[in-house]
Amino acid sequence: MAVTVLRLGHRPERDKRVSTHAALVARAFGADRIVYTGVRDEKMEKSVCAVSENWGGSFSIAYERSWKKVVRDFDGCVVHLTMYGLPVDDVVKNISGDVLVVVGGEKVPGDVYEAADFNVSVSSQPHSEIAALAVFLDRFFRGSELSKDFNGRLRIVPQPRGKKVITE
Amino acid sequence: MAVTVLRLGHRPERDKRVSTHAALVARAFGADRIVYTGVRDEKMEKSVCAVSENWGGSFSIAYERSWKKVVRDFDGCVVHLTMYGLPVDDVVKNISGDVLVVVGGEKVPGDVYEAADFNVSVSSQPHSEIAALAVFLDRFFRGSELSKDFNGRLRIVPQPRGKKVITE
Repeated sequence: MAVTVLRLGHRPERDKRVSTHAALVARAFGADRIVYTGVRDEKMEKSVCAVSENWGGSFSIAYERSWKKVVRDFDGCVVHLTMYGLPVDDVVKNISGDVLVVVGGEKVPGDVYEAADFNVSVSSQPHSEIAALAVFLDRFFRGSELSKDFNGRLRIVPQPRGKKVITE
Repeated sequence: MAVTVLRLGHRPERDKRVSTHAALVARAFGADRIVYTGVRDEKMEKSVCAVSENWGGSFSIAYERSWKKVVRDFDGCVVHLTMYGLPVDDVVKNISGDVLVVVGGEKVPGDVYEAADFNVSVSSQPHSEIAALAVFLDRFFRGSELSKDFNGRLRIVPQPRGKKVITE
């Protein structure tokens, strides 16, 4: 059961931080990789890789020119997160196996709605693709992702106050 | 039971989109208001207010110069979201009543950890304050926030494909 996130239409100037957040959420919430389209951004790729090197796991990031190719080549269930879709709590039980989770940028082509096996909403209110991705993965993994062991060089020991980080 | 979100250290140039996402997540996930510190950003305030006007509810946004004043004046439970804190699933059951949820920016002053009643982590991995806020509120409201009725001028009717918006 592998989870890939597909982030559409990255624009380095405008989306740098939002796309980086999306990638780090994908990793922290248990996805295996993120693929992004739009404009290639090696700086973002490096910063995501640096997190994986320090904090563990085998998360990867890759650029692809065409989202259609990513979707076409994907063998599994394609889930598109959109505020217009069916409520996550109604449909997540029907989603299993390898999953491609598609998260949009500013403008999502209409074809994406057609290409998806499921168009899924995390509330029908406008908010954030970062939050939608986190909550979708949380529902998909039933909360178990929050205690996933990444076996990293850096490791936090949860504290009621202050910061405790162990370096191995 | 009112929930206020306090967003620390907003910088209009760099944080515009991240802070806007945080505000929209606060609203969509059931908080009543967001207060932010750092640099005042009337453009961001306007864009958040426009969402409330169109999509309903009584969410508000306000600027304050001093986070210490916001925390000191708050009568209720202060929760600071940080990757170094105690796991959300262990502590959320101890949090009730009026809540101030503090989310940091790039650098969080050490005093914030002391001022909080609870330092809470949404996984001990680096990711996104937007995702942490969404998942914390989702746990706090036990998922009920996802079907909250905002009674807005615009309203989405969830669809398996495409978009259906009703304007009242």
